[in-house]
Amino acid sequence: MPCGGQGRCGRCAVIVEEGPVRRRSTQRLSPEDVAAGYALACQTVVEGDVVVTIPPQERIERRLKESKRAVKVELPFPYDIHDQPIRKIAVTLDPPSLADQTDDWSRLQRELARRFDLRDVQVSLPVLKKLGPALREGEWTVTAVLEMDAWDRPEGPPRIIDILPGERLESLWAAAIDIGTTSNVVWLVDLISGQVMAQAADYNGQIARGEDVISRIIYASKGNGLEELQGLVMETLNRLLKKVARERGISTDEIYKVVVAGNTTMLHLFAGIPPESIRLMPFIPVVNHLPTFPARDIGLGVNPEATVDCLPGIASYVGADITAGVLSSGMCEEEELTLFIDIGTNGEMVLGDCTWLIACACSAGPAFEGAGVVHGMRATAGAIEEVWVNSETYEASYRVIGNEKPRGICGSGLISLMAEMFIAGVIDKSGNINLNLPTERVREGEHGPEYVVAWADETAIGEDIAITAVDIDNLMRAKAAIYAGFSVLARSVGLTLADVSKVLIGGAFGQYINVEKAIQIGMLPDKPYESFEFLGNTSVRGAYYALVSRDMRRRVTEVGQMMTYLELSADNTFFDEFNAALFLPHTDLTQFPSVATLLKE
Amino acid sequence: MPCGGQGRCGRCAVIVEEGPVRRRSTQRLSPEDVAAGYALACQTVVEGDVVVTIPPQERIERRLKESKRAVKVELPFPYDIHDQPIRKIAVTLDPPSLADQTDDWSRLQRELARRFDLRDVQVSLPVLKKLGPALREGEWTVTAVLEMDAWDRPEGPPRIIDILPGERLESLWAAAIDIGTTSNVVWLVDLISGQVMAQAADYNGQIARGEDVISRIIYASKGNGLEELQGLVMETLNRLLKKVARERGISTDEIYKVVVAGNTTMLHLFAGIPPESIRLMPFIPVVNHLPTFPARDIGLGVNPEATVDCLPGIASYVGADITAGVLSSGMCEEEELTLFIDIGTNGEMVLGDCTWLIACACSAGPAFEGAGVVHGMRATAGAIEEVWVNSETYEASYRVIGNEKPRGICGSGLISLMAEMFIAGVIDKSGNINLNLPTERVREGEHGPEYVVAWADETAIGEDIAITAVDIDNLMRAKAAIYAGFSVLARSVGLTLADVSKVLIGGAFGQYINVEKAIQIGMLPDKPYESFEFLGNTSVRGAYYALVSRDMRRRVTEVGQMMTYLELSADNTFFDEFNAALFLPHTDLTQFPSVATLLKE
Repeated sequence: MPCGGQGRCGRCAVIVEEGPVRRRSTQRLSPEDVAAGYALACQTVVEGDVVVTIPPQERIERRLKESKRAVKVELPFPYDIHDQPIRKIAVTLDPPSLADQTDDWSRLQRELARRFDLRDVQVSLPVLKKLGPALREGEWTVTAVLEMDAWDRPEGPPRIIDILPGERLESLWAAAIDIGTTSNVVWLVDLISGQVMAQAADYNGQIARGEDVISRIIYASKGNGLEELQGLVMETLNRLLKKVARERGISTDEIYKVVVAGNTTMLHLFAGIPPESIRLMPFIPVVNHLPTFPARDIGLGVNPEATVDCLPGIASYVGADITAGVLSSGMCEEEELTLFIDIGTNGEMVLGDCTWLIACACSAGPAFEGAGVVHGMRATAGAIEEVWVNSETYEASYRVIGNEKPRGICGSGLISLMAEMFIAGVIDKSGNINLNLPTERVREGEHGPEYVVAWADETAIGEDIAITAVDIDNLMRAKAAIYAGFSVLARSVGLTLADVSKVLIGGAFGQYINVEKAIQIGMLPDKPYESFEFLGNTSVRGAYYALVSRDMRRRVTEVGQMMTYLELSADNTFFDEFNAALFLPHTDLTQFPSVATLLKE
Repeated sequence: MPCGGQGRCGRCAVIVEEGPVRRRSTQRLSPEDVAAGYALACQTVVEGDVVVTIPPQERIERRLKESKRAVKVELPFPYDIHDQPIRKIAVTLDPPSLADQTDDWSRLQRELARRFDLRDVQVSLPVLKKLGPALREGEWTVTAVLEMDAWDRPEGPPRIIDILPGERLESLWAAAIDIGTTSNVVWLVDLISGQVMAQAADYNGQIARGEDVISRIIYASKGNGLEELQGLVMETLNRLLKKVARERGISTDEIYKVVVAGNTTMLHLFAGIPPESIRLMPFIPVVNHLPTFPARDIGLGVNPEATVDCLPGIASYVGADITAGVLSSGMCEEEELTLFIDIGTNGEMVLGDCTWLIACACSAGPAFEGAGVVHGMRATAGAIEEVWVNSETYEASYRVIGNEKPRGICGSGLISLMAEMFIAGVIDKSGNINLNLPTERVREGEHGPEYVVAWADETAIGEDIAITAVDIDNLMRAKAAIYAGFSVLARSVGLTLADVSKVLIGGAFGQYINVEKAIQIGMLPDKPYESFEFLGNTSVRGAYYALVSRDMRRRVTEVGQMMTYLELSADNTFFDEFNAALFLPHTDLTQFPSVATLLKE
């Protein structure tokens, strides 16, 4: 949790249903909360058998939508959706006799060569074990599930993944997976139609061991930490795989192929590769593009012989989630200069078009995810997600997720709030709060100057929800880091952000940003609204594309190869750009003409 | 055990060192034996905590010789002994920096391509896990252990088996293994010199679950029988591997390659492939040539990433042990017509030369292994291995393994005994015992007519050691089956055994056969002594050849392909040939001119 168990952030609130506990006093909970059974887990001592409920509002329902309907995903390019490498072939063999004692495996190979021109077919021991019984149960008709070629061996040879008795051609399943630091997403794909037939998402089970990649890497480097983290994400994924399989009435053993996207750290942990070097200078991952491996090597809950392909990343902090985004957003086919961004704890960004791509990552810190901000919280029910500040009365009004009493402010709410305070004149271009305004909302608080967004009696937490000068400072640094990243990228290729035609925003967080407000604080470049496209989870979509199309698989490999990585910590212009961006909206107001106009008004 | 636990064969004798047991009476043990603590395990009830020793004389010491010396094995052909696919390469990488953030795996691949022209190098997850730590521990120098190409993929690509920190080029180890139904043999091979550096052998741990392949197959088809048998042979092999590794002061993890020979059933059980179909008409194995697989797939105790290559067999009853024999005996390079034979429970035989090969298997039954014969036993200490019968007095004299008092007669002793009885006139050409001879050694015994080889007071078992008419009948059928096999093979290609120039005898049993006597009973074709060569364990030797030489690997694949299998149960001349051979030496005495001459004398 953000505050590290000091009772400050309130994010660990639980409901004690029964049994004896001793609560330490905390300002985070109102007497009503306590009366309703709420307790901060980090401030509460269990003194006997207790029943505890983790309140549902702590889950990011909005972000983890699940659908029972088949989802039509349009491929944006003229690629053949049916050009994928998994095949089912039913084959009837001549039964053996004393006159033809060819062994089972040679008999199958012979027929695959004769009837389907498949030569040099490979098989593993676990599949070979099934052959004898399957042939006899199927009375010399079997269905072979084949992978015609692997990502790293496009010329083949074919490999048998499974052998089933009889003719079993009715279905062919696969999965696309996105492993986010926070959330994991699984799409169940019908390879015959190419459609996504079920989706499921949940928090990454590793969250309890650290919220960001750095804390996960540190955790992985101690004792059995790596195995533990690998086991935790596998539990989450296997639960999701079971869920989508159950939804379609199939066994997870029928899932014959998996393609995975995720950031570099997440893919190291997924594959059980030590990630330590990612966080140590000079920030080198063990592997940017994992080799193809069978699911059984990591205990992923699909057919154990199914191969797992991970998309290629390009650096420790620009991973496969970003190449997936560049692929599925269509950026890599754009003729016009395009900026792709994915903002979370880190802001990853790519600039370029169909001929060149340059990428960097800047550590925005967790401010926009609600940490490092006194009343920050995740975008769950009770979070203020949009704020308006009256520029005459300085009164605030706001919208809360779930239409509840507010409990805190989420990332999109913080962007909105800062922009409104700036435009209304509550803060100046350096972010300083003007304490001389004729309103009680600005005041010297416990943590220095602050602005009250919601009064205690309006809130669900029994205290004022305010934003402090320190909070604002953190947010300024976060938005400055992101904008400085854009600037350095453009400058490194002799361009400016004014040359950018399109801004593609990936990631769940991006979907909820108010672009106008993000421009007003100088976080996003000042472009007309129609230049922005919000694409949601571009990572799982990229995995899906690479799953259903060999062309897309080739293309994402090319994307990884054509993408140049710019290491900001080695770039001597970054610090200048960062300092220049530490103003609202920016030191150079000419970069924000629409904001300049607004300020003049 | 042969008698099935009925107290008749005496093969389960143990020494009760301490503790209460209740013995059932048995004729198999003398009072002295019992006084010395001997008990038949199958006839003894344990009535408390006991300490039991399995007597060393029950082990076939002579057959399972082990050597601590390096063994020089001469390759009979002009093949390059150093042309094997495992390489160690020490490589020093440029350390990474902010200016060169290439990931570890690409950095290694880059250097392998640049300095060693190795491209498209493959790696598995378990090896990739070692890369990051190894590079940093070795300060950017690592030793990669590579397999340059696999048996079934001679064009490559190379695959990394192991990554070690620093420069570790001093050694390179591999193992050749023979999995016999009775005994397992492991040779530890130094791939740098190509020499065998240690050997170990022991009984196959599956023996307790059935002595021959048929009983193992039946055992494997019930419950967890297959997994159990696989586990038992793996225990034996892993113990032997540890033993040879310890002898050379290395870890079994340093064994980077394994080549295995064995009969078809043994290789199915080794790989965990259901063997049921081998014993059912029309006798089809699942696979004659197993695909290459990593040791970790079956839990073989070498480096888990080491590949295991099994030699190719050609049929259910002509397995990889026979192709190994044809390879290592040099038969496949012979210009003259050659007969290769390997006699055990089954007699496998191959006829041909360097241009063609034809093989068959005949079920000789376990008579020559001491089973199905009242006083039969394995060739351990106490076994009569050679007999002389005086043709005037009909008195017998004999030689015993270990120079002890005899306990029974082993296979070579039985052949010797039959031949002597026949030449001396104790039995006629039909095998009938002449009860009218002036000697007490021929008599009507409990089981019908019999001939006493050793009187009770000479033996260690306190009773007469005799051979009965039923024993002789069993032996006649066994030798007739073998000779009929030879005849059918020759006839099938329009030749006769007279055309054969060389007879190569493989297998442990073969080493102890008295050829002259085997010819006299009509078991081996009537050739001059110098036509016969005794080669010992040609199976492990074949595995060793294929391990150290790609040429030999290719050659044994060719041998498997060029060898035609003749199914005797589908051959309508076999029964005629068998009946013709049910005489001493044969119905057609012209096939045994030396015996005819002897009989005349």
